[in-house]
Amino acid sequence: MHRIKLFLFFLTTSVFSYAQSDEVVIRDIYNEALTNGRSYDVLAYLSNQIGGRLSGSPQAAAAVEYTRQVMLDFGFDTVFLQPIMVPRWVRGEVEKAKIINSKKIGSVEVNICALGNSIGTDMGGISAPVIEVHNFEELADLEESEVKGKIVFFNRPLDPTLINTFRAYGGAVNQRGGGPVMAAKLGAIGVVVRSMTLSLDDIPHTGATRYQDGVPKIPAVAISTNDANMLSSLLKDDPGLRFYFETHCKMMPDVLSYNVVGEITGSKKPDEYILVGGHLDSWDIGDGAHDDGAGCVQAIEVLRIFKALEITPVHSIRAVMFMNEENGLRGGTRYAELAKKNNEKHIAGIESDRGGFTPRGFTISAEDETLDKIMSWKNLFTPYEADNFLKGGGGADIGPLRAQGTVLIGLYTDSQRYFDYHHTAIDTFDKVNKRELEMGAASMAALIYLIDHYGL
Amino acid sequence: MHRIKLFLFFLTTSVFSYAQSDEVVIRDIYNEALTNGRSYDVLAYLSNQIGGRLSGSPQAAAAVEYTRQVMLDFGFDTVFLQPIMVPRWVRGEVEKAKIINSKKIGSVEVNICALGNSIGTDMGGISAPVIEVHNFEELADLEESEVKGKIVFFNRPLDPTLINTFRAYGGAVNQRGGGPVMAAKLGAIGVVVRSMTLSLDDIPHTGATRYQDGVPKIPAVAISTNDANMLSSLLKDDPGLRFYFETHCKMMPDVLSYNVVGEITGSKKPDEYILVGGHLDSWDIGDGAHDDGAGCVQAIEVLRIFKALEITPVHSIRAVMFMNEENGLRGGTRYAELAKKNNEKHIAGIESDRGGFTPRGFTISAEDETLDKIMSWKNLFTPYEADNFLKGGGGADIGPLRAQGTVLIGLYTDSQRYFDYHHTAIDTFDKVNKRELEMGAASMAALIYLIDHYGL
Repeated sequence: MHRIKLFLFFLTTSVFSYAQSDEVVIRDIYNEALTNGRSYDVLAYLSNQIGGRLSGSPQAAAAVEYTRQVMLDFGFDTVFLQPIMVPRWVRGEVEKAKIINSKKIGSVEVNICALGNSIGTDMGGISAPVIEVHNFEELADLEESEVKGKIVFFNRPLDPTLINTFRAYGGAVNQRGGGPVMAAKLGAIGVVVRSMTLSLDDIPHTGATRYQDGVPKIPAVAISTNDANMLSSLLKDDPGLRFYFETHCKMMPDVLSYNVVGEITGSKKPDEYILVGGHLDSWDIGDGAHDDGAGCVQAIEVLRIFKALEITPVHSIRAVMFMNEENGLRGGTRYAELAKKNNEKHIAGIESDRGGFTPRGFTISAEDETLDKIMSWKNLFTPYEADNFLKGGGGADIGPLRAQGTVLIGLYTDSQRYFDYHHTAIDTFDKVNKRELEMGAASMAALIYLIDHYGL
Repeated sequence: MHRIKLFLFFLTTSVFSYAQSDEVVIRDIYNEALTNGRSYDVLAYLSNQIGGRLSGSPQAAAAVEYTRQVMLDFGFDTVFLQPIMVPRWVRGEVEKAKIINSKKIGSVEVNICALGNSIGTDMGGISAPVIEVHNFEELADLEESEVKGKIVFFNRPLDPTLINTFRAYGGAVNQRGGGPVMAAKLGAIGVVVRSMTLSLDDIPHTGATRYQDGVPKIPAVAISTNDANMLSSLLKDDPGLRFYFETHCKMMPDVLSYNVVGEITGSKKPDEYILVGGHLDSWDIGDGAHDDGAGCVQAIEVLRIFKALEITPVHSIRAVMFMNEENGLRGGTRYAELAKKNNEKHIAGIESDRGGFTPRGFTISAEDETLDKIMSWKNLFTPYEADNFLKGGGGADIGPLRAQGTVLIGLYTDSQRYFDYHHTAIDTFDKVNKRELEMGAASMAALIYLIDHYGL
């Protein structure tokens, strides 16, 4: 059976549409990234000098201006901003919580961080008994009386047996995104969510939650995996314990912000675009070095490499720093609207938003024939250990372009460490390895070179 | 041309010699490692409680006893020690150095660490002019008068364009291993070596150097890559500058130590062995978490997984913690001698000594037919992203078994970060990711399961 499978695989993927000279260009691309690469320096500034840059914050504005200037300094043909109104959520100064024993005087402090977009508590915080659930079905099976007035504790861990940790994340993150609405429908007054990580540690992970019209907004926070295990364990001994937390976060009026776009104009098909991008906004805690400073500086690096190697592209190549991926996707949405309005045909969009880790290949959303064509290039990436080309998946910011027929591609990185840092105070520059970052940029530049050269 | 290449590839590697049930067992192996894995906890103790464990040190003795007890606690069929005499080199308390300007009063302190096996300086240190070279050819082209009485500074960087960083290391490490002998032959009184890393930072990397009978022993130290660049730059302005360094390291009499061996006895071929191992000794600075605590705890984990899943092997499976890989290879040498003497037929040896990073596949040294057989299993590792099976290479400790016809296999890991930490004070437990470590153990357990099941 396996023999037959491989044979079919061979038949369907043997259309090799590349030349020896492509190997040389791709070698040059990696050499340039690994020898003269600038992505690491640019990320150092973005992370260490600007830092966390949530949509609408002064840091986000600084990041817009900084990346604009970097692209001007690199001499790209055009650098411009796309104005967009973005939500501005602010965390506030105070975030505190404790677990209060029902049997005797005593409490344990725990670290929390409010979920993004959450409302805050009143000044005195809230304190209530806790009901632990692991999924929405379990919650739905409860009587309203079992939930009303309580804090719902969502405690389903990520599945450690999934090798691709993004799949593990995908299997748990609905608790964070949809938990507060589900809990509020049954009369809960607050939500505590186990952090979205496979690591057992003391670090709470933030990330966006969503409210729904007609459902009361209740405050929601994340606790670390260690604290989630402790809370679960304490609940078994003391079902009457209370959880107290206080947060001062709130949503402010929308703020003017921007996508930042740099372009090398195509020599033959200037109105057809290949986009490479990441999102410039990050969560407020940490530096946003991996999520997604890495993707932004890699996108800029792709264009810098083209210029350094004097590769004149057929199509226009754009580096796009999208704004507001984390809590609204306004940048990605607006970019696609403008592309349509301006008749900018985007043949492909590549997004790097899986951290600045060793590139392993690409995830590709395309029609079968196009997919086969891209797959036929994978052996060119074998020397760089980045030849894992997978069907399906692209990136959040480029997603809205799909309706225009754009092929969507995501840089596929080694995912083991990503959720150790994701949306935390330790997503910082020191967690990024220079070579891993550079190899990611080179991999995208190489693929864009092939797309530009052979079309899609 | 590419089409033909693939077709030939298909013809030669299409012998699929595995069954659906193998996929199930391998899935179980990874699940066990990722869900109930113990390698991370064992490494925590070895790194944090015992720490750096150079051959002959009290810490090395503690590591022998600790890993012996761990394997007894896990209930392996046999656990025993193989006595060996090992060198004992001690660093001493003082390591200091500075660059002294020749034109005016002034000096710059630099961090150094003595190379392993090096002699120390006299108590007052040594101070001499510096001659910078990049390779042995350049050194050999110099007149003896240009070298005599000087300190030779070997400053050839690792090649950043090599994707596999072990190749980059291999292209530079002769400066560290052979530099002092080459320099002493021309009358140099000391050696300074640029650290063996691709990272630009302030951390000196130790590692073994070798002396040669009949050639004067001269003291040798490493400086960081940043300091190497600084020294090179200062030399251009001030060729008369002097380098001063003082080290108190020395070689002591040999010490009794041990290889530590745990075994699950084979059900049908108990006298035929499949070995999995790493080296228990490490450098004295740092914890030796990646080099090679990781390999040791992974080897133990392989046997633990077999027991946990109640896999009864046909052949005997041994976890071997080799002693003295870093500065003598006495453990590996002795192990092979004893295997031969005791008629223990080792069909395969797998070593993990490339750090506890994401496993990417294996490097395999075997005859063509055997290699083809192992290669035919690679698709089984695709779901675990560890299917990069490469010809050639095994591991230092298992190398001496090659003469007995043993197939040698090395766990091939993602190599980008390895030389950031290798042989330094920052090769510590916090640099190890639990899942990456566990996946390496699972990958080796899976391959050993196949070798045991199908033979070689």
